[in-house]
Amino acid sequence: MKTRIGIMGYGNLGRGVEIAVNAADDMELAAVFTRRAPETVKILSPDVPVVHADEAEQWKDKIDVLILCGGSATDLPEQTPAYARMFNVIDSFDTHARIPEHFANVDKAAKEGGKTAIISVGWDPGMFSLNRVYANAILPDGKDYTFWGKGISQGHSDAVRRIKGVKNAKQYTIPVEDALKAVRAGENPELTTRQKHIRECFVVLEDGADAERVEKEIKTMPNYFADYDTIVHFISEEELQRDHAGMAHGGFVFRSGRTGVNGEHKHIIEYSLKLDSNPEFTTSVLVAYARAAKRLYEEGQSGCKTVLDIPPAYLSDKSGEELRAHLL
Amino acid sequence: MKTRIGIMGYGNLGRGVEIAVNAADDMELAAVFTRRAPETVKILSPDVPVVHADEAEQWKDKIDVLILCGGSATDLPEQTPAYARMFNVIDSFDTHARIPEHFANVDKAAKEGGKTAIISVGWDPGMFSLNRVYANAILPDGKDYTFWGKGISQGHSDAVRRIKGVKNAKQYTIPVEDALKAVRAGENPELTTRQKHIRECFVVLEDGADAERVEKEIKTMPNYFADYDTIVHFISEEELQRDHAGMAHGGFVFRSGRTGVNGEHKHIIEYSLKLDSNPEFTTSVLVAYARAAKRLYEEGQSGCKTVLDIPPAYLSDKSGEELRAHLL
Repeated sequence: MKTRIGIMGYGNLGRGVEIAVNAADDMELAAVFTRRAPETVKILSPDVPVVHADEAEQWKDKIDVLILCGGSATDLPEQTPAYARMFNVIDSFDTHARIPEHFANVDKAAKEGGKTAIISVGWDPGMFSLNRVYANAILPDGKDYTFWGKGISQGHSDAVRRIKGVKNAKQYTIPVEDALKAVRAGENPELTTRQKHIRECFVVLEDGADAERVEKEIKTMPNYFADYDTIVHFISEEELQRDHAGMAHGGFVFRSGRTGVNGEHKHIIEYSLKLDSNPEFTTSVLVAYARAAKRLYEEGQSGCKTVLDIPPAYLSDKSGEELRAHLL
Repeated sequence: MKTRIGIMGYGNLGRGVEIAVNAADDMELAAVFTRRAPETVKILSPDVPVVHADEAEQWKDKIDVLILCGGSATDLPEQTPAYARMFNVIDSFDTHARIPEHFANVDKAAKEGGKTAIISVGWDPGMFSLNRVYANAILPDGKDYTFWGKGISQGHSDAVRRIKGVKNAKQYTIPVEDALKAVRAGENPELTTRQKHIRECFVVLEDGADAERVEKEIKTMPNYFADYDTIVHFISEEELQRDHAGMAHGGFVFRSGRTGVNGEHKHIIEYSLKLDSNPEFTTSVLVAYARAAKRLYEEGQSGCKTVLDIPPAYLSDKSGEELRAHLL
């Protein structure tokens, strides 16, 4: 029997989940839930119902795993605990600093409902976290490096858009090539914020806005830009739509460690992602963990988990025998 | 209470386990077992007993996990099932084709003894296997590539040493740079054996041996060399000892996949290792999984496992709370 998936929220992530579920032989999409008027939401799968979010509870017994596709700022802190009482759920909560609090809320709700929840699934947090944990456990004497990009940062793009006189903007985070090289060469550099990433902004001004003032406001903005080398380009709305609508992203996780009687042997572990579509890769991870959530639930393991708690084999549709024979 | 580790067999792997255990705050080395006369085996840790392998059973209650450091050809197929009846065990069995059979034997023995065994731990099988399984689950529509090197292949070095007239030899497996580039660029190339790896041999001849015949025998040897571009150098024993005694190794695992309504988005996942010491990295992985074996045993999970069955958090000496707060 196929794993029946529900999607809560139909933006870039919801659509990505739909694509990934349709590509998986062992899954089927049961319903898409939305807070908009359902008849206004056009999905890719002709035979799948679009249902108002208020009616989700009626689908409790028709869905094995509900994948929550809302945002981390306001949607998921509410939604994940609420739905974890009724469904096995997966979310991509990515506000690192608030993960412990979110975990506690979801754990309580999922245990009360006897359901399995997996939070903070995606690539960072997610696959990058896994690689940090594996590499730290293997090389306890070492240094971690995480680089992001080249890709658009939503938070930094939003920050630029909030500046007076800015009509629209996209901000790319770009890892500094020399820093990557030094880490890869095992030099264990101490890197400042500025030495790790460059920030490049493409900005559309409102009519009559003062470009010089906007550029200065961007470059001096605390936390977001002041500690970085920031490049600002002013372009037209047409250019922004034409050249900067892509959703490519990626990044690198390194562990540079030592072993030996006197730490005489260096080892570099590198994990990297080069992604044409950030949301579609993220949702491919979400869907693989939905498979794990169903299996954990069937084993009676209720409560909240993260990717760190899940055996890798649980993500696969292949049996243990097949995995040992072909992928081990 | 610290995890008490035993080492069975004291060669390069046994010594590497000793170094890794001494570097771990939560572990202590209880004993080293050997089939040689114990008084002839000199270890790094002054206060740890060296004991004959025949007396291992007497240590059943003084050791939490026994790490088996024998070879895959003849030692481990016998040793792992035998010791899995008495101890929680870890091995680095790396004959891929025989893993299913080894798993079945160890599983039976470990279940009879109520112990936990984890087999085929290291980097391939091991960390590379994990990366293949994660990446396949996330990107079901894609291609896998594994490259090894640059590093010495023991099996190929042995094959050269068996040729008449060869006194000593080392063989390096080297990934072909253009193949790596094509995979990294998402070209999804179909690669022949020859296009993936080069084999480079450093050979010491016996007095009076015919270099031309030896070179021809190497280059035409079926399975080992005939399908590769092979480079043969003749050098002196002194040069071999001086320049080719290192144990560096490494490799690359790629998954190159597609997502999207029409597969329009490409994604590349790359995992790579650059290791100064193949045995010390391997044993660092073994020791991390020893931590997991103890925990699984305490949970009552007896039988045989592989790295695919173990939650990543079980490898770490940090709590779930710490991992979620700092590494997720």
